[in-house]
Amino acid sequence: MSLLVVGSVAFDAVKTPFGEVDEALGGSATYFSTSASYFTDVSVVAVVGDDFPEKHLTSLKSHGIDIEGIERAEGKTFRWKGEYGYELNEAKTLDTQLNVFESFKPKLPESYKDKKVVFLANIHPDLQRDVLNQVNKPDLVACDTMNFWIGGERESLLETLKSVDILLINDGEARQLADEPNIVKAAQKVMKMGPSTLIVKQGEYGALMFSGNEIFSAPAYPLEAVFDPTGAGDSFAGGFMGYLTNTMNFEPANIRQAIIFGSVMASFNVESFSLDRLKSLDYKEIEARFREFKRLTHFEDLG
Amino acid sequence: MSLLVVGSVAFDAVKTPFGEVDEALGGSATYFSTSASYFTDVSVVAVVGDDFPEKHLTSLKSHGIDIEGIERAEGKTFRWKGEYGYELNEAKTLDTQLNVFESFKPKLPESYKDKKVVFLANIHPDLQRDVLNQVNKPDLVACDTMNFWIGGERESLLETLKSVDILLINDGEARQLADEPNIVKAAQKVMKMGPSTLIVKQGEYGALMFSGNEIFSAPAYPLEAVFDPTGAGDSFAGGFMGYLTNTMNFEPANIRQAIIFGSVMASFNVESFSLDRLKSLDYKEIEARFREFKRLTHFEDLG
Repeated sequence: MSLLVVGSVAFDAVKTPFGEVDEALGGSATYFSTSASYFTDVSVVAVVGDDFPEKHLTSLKSHGIDIEGIERAEGKTFRWKGEYGYELNEAKTLDTQLNVFESFKPKLPESYKDKKVVFLANIHPDLQRDVLNQVNKPDLVACDTMNFWIGGERESLLETLKSVDILLINDGEARQLADEPNIVKAAQKVMKMGPSTLIVKQGEYGALMFSGNEIFSAPAYPLEAVFDPTGAGDSFAGGFMGYLTNTMNFEPANIRQAIIFGSVMASFNVESFSLDRLKSLDYKEIEARFREFKRLTHFEDLG
Repeated sequence: MSLLVVGSVAFDAVKTPFGEVDEALGGSATYFSTSASYFTDVSVVAVVGDDFPEKHLTSLKSHGIDIEGIERAEGKTFRWKGEYGYELNEAKTLDTQLNVFESFKPKLPESYKDKKVVFLANIHPDLQRDVLNQVNKPDLVACDTMNFWIGGERESLLETLKSVDILLINDGEARQLADEPNIVKAAQKVMKMGPSTLIVKQGEYGALMFSGNEIFSAPAYPLEAVFDPTGAGDSFAGGFMGYLTNTMNFEPANIRQAIIFGSVMASFNVESFSLDRLKSLDYKEIEARFREFKRLTHFEDLG
């Protein structure tokens, strides 16, 4: 089985208290596909400009990532500039240049149309539907979004959500989407918008999964050195969706394991700038950290 | 075995988006001892004013709480006034009247001096040491504190910490005490100040335990209706210390279970104003919620 993702491929300029990078490879589809590539085949839909170096595409290909759906358009690649304070929780966006993304009309290669698992990364909800409409009967559709679309493109987003099985957003976004401060009540409202499962990302505190009456709480891995949180959410989604695609089992028990794999991938990603750590992992390291998550959360039940 | 606590008995005025109360029974020793009373015998050291109604003391006694060490002094009882916004995470303190606490010199009843487990709730670190010095060789000493003492009475607090085995504080306080934004590094610094175990309370996100090289992450219980977070930290500490005193087992595996019992008690406490929910529990309800924590965090390990 293989996994289709639509999202951004970008250049990031990031500053944290521990250093800074400029023109670093970034973008939701980049982090997502690199992370997912440890679990399954991934095919990417995105657009880059004529300034995008071939070496980055070669690097993605070297991870077995299918880049046939990455279009090269005239103009500049999408650029994002952000800064993190000492708490490293939320980035302050300093600059966003959509560039080639502004006029992007995704057109799926033929080989992409029978993909059974689809991830709609954080882009305009119109584009998310554009892609989804070109796929023949997927078995599982998951989606990310952000405050910008929840506030400014609400109707379009609600339309997209009707076709989504799993929504992955952060807690502030869940509260905003549901217009409800209590996260349990907010989840119940979101699950009436289409998704049967909601995953609430809580940054350094982990993630909550809501599905029917079931709730699962996963911690984040307590790291001694968080270097750069950029791409943590997309790496989480990549590990999560990659594991689900590898197993093609969407039962709650398997979704719980997938969330832990997502958390594992996010924890590796934040240990370095850009994709430096994420792109050089060994599957044994991933399994070892999964087992550390088990030790981190284990307690004996009552007799 | 029985447990000794020194802390405040107070009147609280609390406003949340869901209602308000005035002159409600509050204070760290009150929440702590009521919570701990479901697990063990508790003896309280505190002071109240001549305005403190007998019925509140009767209510504590009805929980089997030993109130011989609650001194009645001339003047008014300690009063705290606070307000919570919709996010219900941190209280905005509107007014604090120390009243009889200002000149409090704790003097332990004879029967208190052989207690083996001691909890120093959040009061002036000088007073914490005053109490501790009157106890003969306790087996376990745990302690809470707050930003006010960390900033204003640092030397005295560091002196107290030398005699403390387990420190329970929130994450902002841990970062402030260690002067270190990363919580793992902060914990390592705090564990050099005296405590061998640090428990970091994260409010709606749960708690982290650091002990040697071991880390345990416990979630908070996702509640549909959080009514009033006042006393959550003290209820947590009460359940935690109550269970440890009941079992007199301070091994890491037992500390993990104790943290879950603490989380259970905090989750009940925030379901109502003041001690309304906490004082009317059944031990079966406590066990049932412990098991729900197990379901909430469970995932299959790798084969």
